[in-house]
Amino acid sequence: MAETPGVVRITDVAALAGVSPSTVSKALNDTGSLRPATRARVREAAERLGFVPDAQARSLSARRSFTVGLLSTDSAGRFSLPVVLGAENALVGGQISALLATARHDPVREQHHVRSLVARRVDGIIVTGRTTDPRRPIQVPMPVVYAYSPSQDPQDASVVPDDTAGMAAVGRHLLSLGRTRVAYVGGRADQAASTLRHAALAATLAERGVTLVGEPLFGEWSERWGRLAVDLVLGDHSPGEPLPVDAIAFASDQLARGGCDRLRDRGVRVPQDVAVTGYDDWDVMALASRPPLTTVDPQLDRLGQRAAELLLAAIDGRPAHGTELSPPRLVVRGSTAGDT
Amino acid sequence: MAETPGVVRITDVAALAGVSPSTVSKALNDTGSLRPATRARVREAAERLGFVPDAQARSLSARRSFTVGLLSTDSAGRFSLPVVLGAENALVGGQISALLATARHDPVREQHHVRSLVARRVDGIIVTGRTTDPRRPIQVPMPVVYAYSPSQDPQDASVVPDDTAGMAAVGRHLLSLGRTRVAYVGGRADQAASTLRHAALAATLAERGVTLVGEPLFGEWSERWGRLAVDLVLGDHSPGEPLPVDAIAFASDQLARGGCDRLRDRGVRVPQDVAVTGYDDWDVMALASRPPLTTVDPQLDRLGQRAAELLLAAIDGRPAHGTELSPPRLVVRGSTAGDT
Repeated sequence: MAETPGVVRITDVAALAGVSPSTVSKALNDTGSLRPATRARVREAAERLGFVPDAQARSLSARRSFTVGLLSTDSAGRFSLPVVLGAENALVGGQISALLATARHDPVREQHHVRSLVARRVDGIIVTGRTTDPRRPIQVPMPVVYAYSPSQDPQDASVVPDDTAGMAAVGRHLLSLGRTRVAYVGGRADQAASTLRHAALAATLAERGVTLVGEPLFGEWSERWGRLAVDLVLGDHSPGEPLPVDAIAFASDQLARGGCDRLRDRGVRVPQDVAVTGYDDWDVMALASRPPLTTVDPQLDRLGQRAAELLLAAIDGRPAHGTELSPPRLVVRGSTAGDT
Repeated sequence: MAETPGVVRITDVAALAGVSPSTVSKALNDTGSLRPATRARVREAAERLGFVPDAQARSLSARRSFTVGLLSTDSAGRFSLPVVLGAENALVGGQISALLATARHDPVREQHHVRSLVARRVDGIIVTGRTTDPRRPIQVPMPVVYAYSPSQDPQDASVVPDDTAGMAAVGRHLLSLGRTRVAYVGGRADQAASTLRHAALAATLAERGVTLVGEPLFGEWSERWGRLAVDLVLGDHSPGEPLPVDAIAFASDQLARGGCDRLRDRGVRVPQDVAVTGYDDWDVMALASRPPLTTVDPQLDRLGQRAAELLLAAIDGRPAHGTELSPPRLVVRGSTAGDT
């Protein structure tokens, strides 16, 4: 697949561009004072030849390591890894390498990783976590951006999924289908992903004078709880009787998938009798569900990309402060939209 | 959570150990000729103070970067990321940092990543992929170990999951339960994960004179295909009639989960009438399935750790050649074992 790389030397670039090797170095490292035309000519020559500068030499001349740390505390990686991959994707475009450091929710290990990244003289660090609950900031002498799990310090730069916008889109979608008897099923009651989404749904329905049916139900993030919650919502309803709801909004695709299974077990048709929505657009849940789930894609790769952009800006001396919301996307499928 | 790291200097370690800073450097970098007792005293002092050597300086003095590249070509990451995390885990123990490079099944991007890792002077590279099918080797001037996806070159070092052992364990388990009318459902027919597992199951049953029921069924890696395959196995069987099989071995948990759903839809009891097995021990599938799946855990984190060990040995001048099989583990749950 590959020829042995590294055969193109700085002198080759210099020869093609008609300049000295030190001018090549200045042009590619953005140092020294060169005419823009010269800089452009060198870059063109470097690109044409596929020149890859020696990263260690580049690092010593520019006083930057062109390396960023990606610190994850998520053992499963279900949410943080798409963020990490999105960030890595954005960094590659900027010729930045990504050092991966996974702490698996272990503070001692995290501390070790932080020290190691500092010792490596990374230019900055992106910190991701396994929930959207705020986390303690790390103390390091370089820029940090928090992605998915925001920092508890409002002066830090954080990028989090806009769950309020996501669940508001779900609420408007259900209203547009004429559904007005909506129940809400969350995951763990102590987590922002459960409570924020509940508040957003209730507020969106309230704008049209609609109140949620019953209290919000909180439990755990599992299909099992999704099935149980359906039993709580339906009570001792028998087939043929009027249903207490015409829609159930679940706070995750796992919950919604369990919910669909239980509704089918009990002879309730989705979406004809009860529309169902999930959250996460997790393909193996949302697409395998019967019917496939209408859900919210938090676009975690874009969130990771945005975190990388903010970090690169901070490294360039333009730090951001506060929490930025990353936009989600409603994905409509058969669990609300009829035959699919 | 953290004090600002990096405050302990090499002179602090030297003072505590009662030696010169250059002796500290030699002791920690394993260079020069020191008495073992001196080396031990320096290491103890460094550990006590939590001294983290400047990685760039360490790198220049030792002519090693103490950095390894983790090259993944898997866009979803379902299989390669556990491998990557296992490798990263093992590397951290050896004070090695991991540069993450994800190519998303794009050869041009992979080539860019390979050049970039070479330019970074990584000490070695672990290459992972999204299937167990052999892949083309990369050409680089440092050691490489292939994990999960083996190299097509038998002289390279590869670590792959031992699918033959995994499916043989399934076969023996089914025989131990007295099941002898076993059907096999694979994923894509052109992939080793489908064909190797079929061959292993057939061979294991044959040792006891048992033949698989019907031809192996191949399709796609989805729950949908798992459901369809059950219809193909059962044919126009009606509840109450004798069943053509007493077990179905699926080549993945997704397939098995779809299979369980369809068996239940058709009034067939799992495991009383038909035992079901999956493969992968993918928690969100295996545990959410009704009943939970007996399956094979390929222990991908251990596979990644082993790849890291082989790479570190190769960096130390002890390269391995050929393909090493990483052992799986049978996990017994309700889909074969009765009430769970």
